Amino acid sequence: MITTVCLNSASKRFDSCPAADISDLRVDEQNIVWADVADPTSRDFEDLAEEFGFHPLSIEDCRNEHQRPKVEEYEGYYFIVLYEASLAGPTDALELRELNIFLGPNYLVTVHSRPIRAVETANRLWREWSDRAEHGAGLLAYLLIDSVVDDYLPLLDVLSERMDDLEDQIFGDFKPEAIQEIFRVKKQLLFLRRTVTPLRDVFNTLLRREQPVFRRETHVYFQDVYDHLIRVADTIDTLRDMLSSTMDAYLSVSGNRMNMIMKRLTSVSTILMSVTLIAGIYGMNFDFMPELKWEFGYVFALLSMVGVGVGLYAYLKKVNWL
Amino acid sequence: MITTVCLNSASKRFDSCPAADISDLRVDEQNIVWADVADPTSRDFEDLAEEFGFHPLSIEDCRNEHQRPKVEEYEGYYFIVLYEASLAGPTDALELRELNIFLGPNYLVTVHSRPIRAVETANRLWREWSDRAEHGAGLLAYLLIDSVVDDYLPLLDVLSERMDDLEDQIFGDFKPEAIQEIFRVKKQLLFLRRTVTPLRDVFNTLLRREQPVFRRETHVYFQDVYDHLIRVADTIDTLRDMLSSTMDAYLSVSGNRMNMIMKRLTSVSTILMSVTLIAGIYGMNFDFMPELKWEFGYVFALLSMVGVGVGLYAYLKKVNWL
Amino acid sequence: MITTVCLNSASKRFDSCPAADISDLRVDEQNIVWADVADPTSRDFEDLAEEFGFHPLSIEDCRNEHQRPKVEEYEGYYFIVLYEASLAGPTDALELRELNIFLGPNYLVTVHSRPIRAVETANRLWREWSDRAEHGAGLLAYLLIDSVVDDYLPLLDVLSERMDDLEDQIFGDFKPEAIQEIFRVKKQLLFLRRTVTPLRDVFNTLLRREQPVFRRETHVYFQDVYDHLIRVADTIDTLRDMLSSTMDAYLSVSGNRMNMIMKRLTSVSTILMSVTLIAGIYGMNFDFMPELKWEFGYVFALLSMVGVGVGLYAYLKKVNWL
Amino acid sequence: MITTVCLNSASKRFDSCPAADISDLRVDEQNIVWADVADPTSRDFEDLAEEFGFHPLSIEDCRNEHQRPKVEEYEGYYFIVLYEASLAGPTDALELRELNIFLGPNYLVTVHSRPIRAVETANRLWREWSDRAEHGAGLLAYLLIDSVVDDYLPLLDVLSERMDDLEDQIFGDFKPEAIQEIFRVKKQLLFLRRTVTPLRDVFNTLLRREQPVFRRETHVYFQDVYDHLIRVADTIDTLRDMLSSTMDAYLSVSGNRMNMIMKRLTSVSTILMSVTLIAGIYGMNFDFMPELKWEFGYVFALLSMVGVGVGLYAYLKKVNWL
Amino acid sequence: MITTVCLNSASKRFDSCPAADISDLRVDEQNIVWADVADPTSRDFEDLAEEFGFHPLSIEDCRNEHQRPKVEEYEGYYFIVLYEASLAGPTDALELRELNIFLGPNYLVTVHSRPIRAVETANRLWREWSDRAEHGAGLLAYLLIDSVVDDYLPLLDVLSERMDDLEDQIFGDFKPEAIQEIFRVKKQLLFLRRTVTPLRDVFNTLLRREQPVFRRETHVYFQDVYDHLIRVADTIDTLRDMLSSTMDAYLSVSGNRMNMIMKRLTSVSTILMSVTLIAGIYGMNFDFMPELKWEFGYVFALLSMVGVGVGLYAYLKKVNWL
Repeated sequence: MITTVCLNSASKRFDSCPAADISDLRVDEQNIVWADVADPTSRDFEDLAEEFGFHPLSIEDCRNEHQRPKVEEYEGYYFIVLYEASLAGPTDALELRELNIFLGPNYLVTVHSRPIRAVETANRLWREWSDRAEHGAGLLAYLLIDSVVDDYLPLLDVLSERMDDLEDQIFGDFKPEAIQEIFRVKKQLLFLRRTVTPLRDVFNTLLRREQPVFRRETHVYFQDVYDHLIRVADTIDTLRDMLSSTMDAYLSVSGNRMNMIMKRLTSVSTILMSVTLIAGIYGMNFDFMPELKWEFGYVFALLSMVGVGVGLYAYLKKVNWL
Repeated sequence: MITTVCLNSASKRFDSCPAADISDLRVDEQNIVWADVADPTSRDFEDLAEEFGFHPLSIEDCRNEHQRPKVEEYEGYYFIVLYEASLAGPTDALELRELNIFLGPNYLVTVHSRPIRAVETANRLWREWSDRAEHGAGLLAYLLIDSVVDDYLPLLDVLSERMDDLEDQIFGDFKPEAIQEIFRVKKQLLFLRRTVTPLRDVFNTLLRREQPVFRRETHVYFQDVYDHLIRVADTIDTLRDMLSSTMDAYLSVSGNRMNMIMKRLTSVSTILMSVTLIAGIYGMNFDFMPELKWEFGYVFALLSMVGVGVGLYAYLKKVNWL
Repeated sequence: MITTVCLNSASKRFDSCPAADISDLRVDEQNIVWADVADPTSRDFEDLAEEFGFHPLSIEDCRNEHQRPKVEEYEGYYFIVLYEASLAGPTDALELRELNIFLGPNYLVTVHSRPIRAVETANRLWREWSDRAEHGAGLLAYLLIDSVVDDYLPLLDVLSERMDDLEDQIFGDFKPEAIQEIFRVKKQLLFLRRTVTPLRDVFNTLLRREQPVFRRETHVYFQDVYDHLIRVADTIDTLRDMLSSTMDAYLSVSGNRMNMIMKRLTSVSTILMSVTLIAGIYGMNFDFMPELKWEFGYVFALLSMVGVGVGLYAYLKKVNWL
Repeated sequence: MITTVCLNSASKRFDSCPAADISDLRVDEQNIVWADVADPTSRDFEDLAEEFGFHPLSIEDCRNEHQRPKVEEYEGYYFIVLYEASLAGPTDALELRELNIFLGPNYLVTVHSRPIRAVETANRLWREWSDRAEHGAGLLAYLLIDSVVDDYLPLLDVLSERMDDLEDQIFGDFKPEAIQEIFRVKKQLLFLRRTVTPLRDVFNTLLRREQPVFRRETHVYFQDVYDHLIRVADTIDTLRDMLSSTMDAYLSVSGNRMNMIMKRLTSVSTILMSVTLIAGIYGMNFDFMPELKWEFGYVFALLSMVGVGVGLYAYLKKVNWL
Repeated sequence: MITTVCLNSASKRFDSCPAADISDLRVDEQNIVWADVADPTSRDFEDLAEEFGFHPLSIEDCRNEHQRPKVEEYEGYYFIVLYEASLAGPTDALELRELNIFLGPNYLVTVHSRPIRAVETANRLWREWSDRAEHGAGLLAYLLIDSVVDDYLPLLDVLSERMDDLEDQIFGDFKPEAIQEIFRVKKQLLFLRRTVTPLRDVFNTLLRREQPVFRRETHVYFQDVYDHLIRVADTIDTLRDMLSSTMDAYLSVSGNRMNMIMKRLTSVSTILMSVTLIAGIYGMNFDFMPELKWEFGYVFALLSMVGVGVGLYAYLKKVNWL
């Protein structure tokens, strides 16, 4: 389904128009045309290729999902692939939704097979920022990309909170299952990083060379997106570093618990074996064992068992082995 | 065995022709000649050297297999070495098949000692794409290299699935043997990476400088191959990162299991030693042990043993040591 | 709250003046105006934007705290974000306080929501260095940034001392809790590094290109700041390396202690079991066991128990298992 | 000992000549002079310095062995240091033999204190390749360096085979001593890498800039050496990566064995303690223990011991603890 | 204390002269003046600043010790900070002594608060090399820096020998305390690296750009220093790599020993428990136990105990568990 909006940057008027009129509208350089293609059919792709003259390779990239995030320069337009991320479902699994952008001199085409929140946001903000219409299609691209990038930050906050929880699970009441959660967060960070870093690198080179499509004044906006991308990438790296420390802490605490368990085993064995030894001694069948004849021999034996047991217990408690 | 196909880019006609005619065909710049040399003999190499004037060093590289993937510039042609990869045999071992490409202005020579799937694919696609014949031999090279590179992706999917299996083997019902599989996948990723990254780096430099052999319009196709190579390399790196996390998880879960085993050992020892202690006590030979005279002393002793055993068991179960 | 100070670089006179006069003062290029905005209100931001014509994006960055440290070039001014760090509270938690600096040709605007020590220091030094007033607003920026950066060093000394303590806790009387402290220092270094390295990288590029705002003579001062930043960053990296060695040492010593514990367990078990065996032997009910009839059989048995126990103890002590 | 060979590139004639004639021969640019100095005396160095005018610093580098591999540009000649490697002695220790090369426009001086295999090889090949004499001294240098570099590959094959052995020792019948072999191979790879990578880096820069000494046509040969160096360096890195995986595998398998041992300990303890408990019970001295009076009480007790023992054994075998 | 030496590069005459004459001597470009300031007072710094016109920032760096090694370019001179290293005291602790060098066109000023060995060495060599006086102050700087750098090598040899000792302590008769020595060497390498790498990096950039102060012919000497710096840095990195392998080996051997200990524990427990079981059986009180009546029952029991014990011992010895 293709939704088309056209902004006349002179009159500042927004018009939604049928897809068929795009050709006419594009002729007037004052017009900025945004065609949003949701859940595209094979037919839609052919229309796009014909109407805007997109290179077969970029159309193909659009069709085959699971591209890496990138910004490619074709004759007369930029082809941008990026991913909107969110945590979804009962297990907070990371969901990545692909968004393809064709950015031309006075038009922008967005293609996506799943609903993209950033499209709504950019639509709303575009209307609010109509006073900056002179920045052209570049501004609209900025609004879109910035919405996508800004959505990464709350997501990283969620992951950061989870890592605080993990810390509690390790240093507080140790939970061996924490390893599974560590592993899950690690994978999510890995996938997020893969989504963000190529984009950051591409923006880096993009902003350093001559820009025929982005106007001079629009440049500062893309600088801003780049800055946010660096921030997101830095935060991901910091979280990864912290997670690896968390992993180390997990292993150490797990090792300490093992030491504790072994100490307990040694202690319990020592106490029980010592007490049993006394019972063993009075179980010997010597003819001449004076204690056996004593009236309170039995009580004496039991008391000495208790005495040895309590004594060892107290000693081991004192040296922190129990 | 040399198979020769010639495409006249004006008439769009494909002709297969005897190897002997290559010289004549090459003279006409409209002709694009593809000579595929399968399982080359020493004689074939001499013919190639003579016919195309290839430098002795590149011929030698062709002869000695096990070169690293590379793109080398010689006077008048490019010499490209790359590897087709697949998982073969009952153990899904990684198999790498070398493909040497000589790319000249209007000819392409492929040399390989084992059958290469990409040669078939490129052959088929070349005929389908005959309308783009004006791109010359470069397009043909693109089709070949792209087929090779695209074949890496399903292979990575297989490895990715294996890693999901590994995860199940670790977090589900722990299998110590998983380490061997982790090790195998690690080695396969290592070899794959060694096959892909040099190629990616070479394409990177290739695309950034002046290209006398690739025509301007063909450039975008090689950009596409480069993009795929980055995607493959990125995926390999991600899988490597995930595998190292899997390894960490393996070690942690293995350590947790050790903790569990030690706890069990401690628990079982404690219970059995405690119960044995009671038996030891009533095995003492004191003359005055009132319980020994009781009619139900024996039953009492057995019951207290059971009581101590069950009590300890319940306690240890509760604190999660059993 | 806006505090404004103006230095006339010709007369070397300092005047504090109402915020409303800034426009007039800025006209005279001899004047250097410093407006310090503490705990800014929404109104203050609007005033700043209007008075100095700051770009909306930089104002927005100012409003939303938690930017990454950076130096951005806008038309006519630089926008600098950096963080003052200190250890605060009973647990010596790392506290980062954001400082935003707008550096124009002859003015400097500082914005911060929490009190910044460096503002005091720079204020004091500016008056002392009034003889170098010809360096303009750049010198003032240098004083501010240098104060912030120099404050990192004592903080790193504190962390370094803590690591010496950790070393004692590991190699001296091993404390398993040390892991928690290691983890805390690791996180603090991580956050510090994130505060310092982006700034260092930005200064690196800043100093290597043409500087229209920093005058030639001021350049050497920023070189000095850069040098300090490298030193701080190097020290952080060294501390990180040392902390990771400390972590390794912790794990090794922890493992050695485990070995020691296991040796003790083995030793204690061996001694007690051996002694109990003797008791078990003389607890057998054979009709013909000559020792049982001996008058000193019991004493003999006890003595042999002591003998075996002491002998094993001495042996195990000798081979360092106890 | 100085051995001198001279090739006249016009007449393609090889002459061995006394060291004293070098000056005369060098005057004719057609002549290519190779002076090989084996086991040089202090006098030889002085002669070289005087005859060829080598810079004191390069002579000094020649004298003091244990330089790092390098290519240095001096006025009128290149000074090259590289190492021939082989595995020698009963323990296959890595042996590095230094080779110093002075490469001038039409002469080549090699200095080495131990016999170098590559000198023999280059000598032989130079005579075979006399038809390419127009490449001058550069070709001779190529032959020498290429012989040295090519000798690394079989050596790496040996190390690779050793690593396969190690794998068998880990996954087959685990041998704890494998760690020592892992350590040895690691050290050898480390030293090899140190021998190869500086050379690779130097060739990289060498080939990218203007080459007054290497003629245009010779360039492609050095490109070939560089390619081999990359291959060797890549292989070393791959082996290092694999060795670190091997190390991980070693640790994991070692840990798994520990788990197995602990399980056995628990199992054996459980069985023996349970059986002993039965003996303990019937060792109690109660007056009323009906079993004691039974005629087959003893047999019954023994049978129940066997029953408990076998039952536990079967159970533990089933759950894979024994 | 300021010591001044002056070399007239025409007459090759060395003169020591009072500090007050420096101004006069410097005027003649033929003179090369070296002022060595040992243990400088506040007054000395002021004199230097006045006499040579050093920038306040470089004087300040000189005053505050603990700078990082660096080479800074000021107007008319270079400011160089480097560290002389040695192992001192009974524990062979690493000692770093700071040396500040001001290198001008025809003068060199060295400032250090502790005695520097390289100052002696350079002084001696300068006189020996007076025939190369035309290289000016640069040669003197070379002699100084080279002496400092060359002193790193024997120090690294000491560390390398210590690491061989460590290897013996790990693979020979394992000493758990080795970890502390590993940790110490690691820290020393860390500090050494921090002393060498910044210098190497600075020389790298220094040698690649235009050098107004170093004359063309002097350049080759600094190239030589740079080469030595790379060698030192490479050696440090190699030692670090080897140390980390040593650490891995330590952990592995420590783990193997744990396995051995656990096996022994299991073995000893098994033997003692089995023997005790026999005693337990004959301690049962059944009325009908034929063995108890046998005349040699006791001996039989003892023999069977010995038999079981020896049999198990032999078996466990055979399977390498004891």
